[in-house]
Amino acid sequence: MTDNVSELLSRRACQVEAALREWLADQPDVPLRLGEAIRYSIEAGGKRVRPALALECCALCGGQDRDALPAAAAIECVHTFSLIHDDLPAMDDDDLRRGRPTNHKVFGEAAAILAGDALLTLAFELIVRHAQPSEKACRMALTLARATGRQGMIGGQVLDLLAEGRISGANDATAAAPAGIELVRRIHEQKTARLIAAACRLGGLAADAAEHELAALEAYGLKLGLAFQAVDDLLDVTGTSRALGKTAGKDAAAGKQTLPRIVGVEEAWRIAELQAADAADALAPFGGAAAPLRELARFVVERAS
Amino acid sequence: MTDNVSELLSRRACQVEAALREWLADQPDVPLRLGEAIRYSIEAGGKRVRPALALECCALCGGQDRDALPAAAAIECVHTFSLIHDDLPAMDDDDLRRGRPTNHKVFGEAAAILAGDALLTLAFELIVRHAQPSEKACRMALTLARATGRQGMIGGQVLDLLAEGRISGANDATAAAPAGIELVRRIHEQKTARLIAAACRLGGLAADAAEHELAALEAYGLKLGLAFQAVDDLLDVTGTSRALGKTAGKDAAAGKQTLPRIVGVEEAWRIAELQAADAADALAPFGGAAAPLRELARFVVERAS
Repeated sequence: MTDNVSELLSRRACQVEAALREWLADQPDVPLRLGEAIRYSIEAGGKRVRPALALECCALCGGQDRDALPAAAAIECVHTFSLIHDDLPAMDDDDLRRGRPTNHKVFGEAAAILAGDALLTLAFELIVRHAQPSEKACRMALTLARATGRQGMIGGQVLDLLAEGRISGANDATAAAPAGIELVRRIHEQKTARLIAAACRLGGLAADAAEHELAALEAYGLKLGLAFQAVDDLLDVTGTSRALGKTAGKDAAAGKQTLPRIVGVEEAWRIAELQAADAADALAPFGGAAAPLRELARFVVERAS
Repeated sequence: MTDNVSELLSRRACQVEAALREWLADQPDVPLRLGEAIRYSIEAGGKRVRPALALECCALCGGQDRDALPAAAAIECVHTFSLIHDDLPAMDDDDLRRGRPTNHKVFGEAAAILAGDALLTLAFELIVRHAQPSEKACRMALTLARATGRQGMIGGQVLDLLAEGRISGANDATAAAPAGIELVRRIHEQKTARLIAAACRLGGLAADAAEHELAALEAYGLKLGLAFQAVDDLLDVTGTSRALGKTAGKDAAAGKQTLPRIVGVEEAWRIAELQAADAADALAPFGGAAAPLRELARFVVERAS
């Protein structure tokens, strides 16, 4: 990781973690055990790439950090909800996440499901409560809902499980179609890239960016997300559990259709690099001011190569 | 059921079901199997009491049906999401719901969890996309989030599972406290009554009701919700699976702390009737115009006595 990206990510992580600490503090009506389960996964760390993107994109468009913080925290809530539910026995059945036991291993399945549900709800609560004015808050909440819901991340997880045969779908065209590069690309886009694109768009919305700027930020986020997921697939092949903080080799064991399985490791790296380069190019309208976001795109590919 | 209440409920059900059909129609990016799983539970029926309350409360405050429809549909999405997740093996482990196999029995656990997640997300999407103007949409989304999240229904489900010992919570004051009428009342309020109160408030918000009207509608909904849950507990003792459309006697089998278990069947009926009467009284500011809502409160208690 270059010093610049490293410094950027840790500074942004501090900001969003402070906001989350405040907004996730105990409240009289929240059962203590539920608060614990929520904070266990929120505080498990991770690089906070999504909120960092929201804050950076807001700054790039001339906005203040405080305008983007509710959306930045919300997107981390959605991301954390998705990790908790994806790790469940009925889904990817993972015991480790970021080097620690997964939520359901510590709190049990019921609490893990409900902690995820609560985080998803909280994401929308944070935006409609703290983002101003209302018109902006509604656009933000709609952006987040589209990227998260049946047409976004949740739909992508269904596609992924259909492709693995873990959800049966005799009537589903997707399940019937042969697994190939097109299907993997669609899964990567819906499951991962749309939420990252939403993070970037949310930053732009926070800064009242013009439509052409929002489009550029979304294009950047989408390509970055595709590169990110390609590298994630590659790390599962080439990495170790320790470096990953999760169980390595799971994808192959599960028979998951990943990019390296379909096109080979070398071609998968080439695709990841191409997408990261496309991401950087999408920022052309912002000129030199977008240098930190371009560096972030390079970092995503280089973190493991 | 009196003819009036019956007519009211079926008319309101038609309206909200038409709206849901439109808003849940297939879209290119939604996996077919996910759409099927979502519609399976949405179309399973039920009396649509919550959306009916939203529409009636809106009408009572002089609003148009179209103003309340997004919120009415949203609250049915949240209710349906909660049924799907509550029925999961890790939670209440129910095989039957409204006389049909539960969602996870048909589509598998993974699809059921994701269909619930998608419905929760869709609830917020419907409000911020269709409710107008933005300021009203934000107030509606916040009302829904508070009633749904960690301090509302989801928190209530955690309390319920803690009381049953199905979530362990050594540090939780609630788990340590002796189960009693106070705990049961708190579980009923958070798990059931707050969402029903939110349905009523959402109707008022749709109609731009005054603060004192919103407060009256919420008080009505809260008492109605408490009566509703008390009767639900009673039906589990006195009803059959067929009448219930779900597995009867589950509460006792699970060792659930229900109202009849703690205060006896007779006293539980008295409490339910008292709460329904309180609900009717809360509508005093609306005078005779609130007659349909008062009848609805009576119906809730009388549906099985």
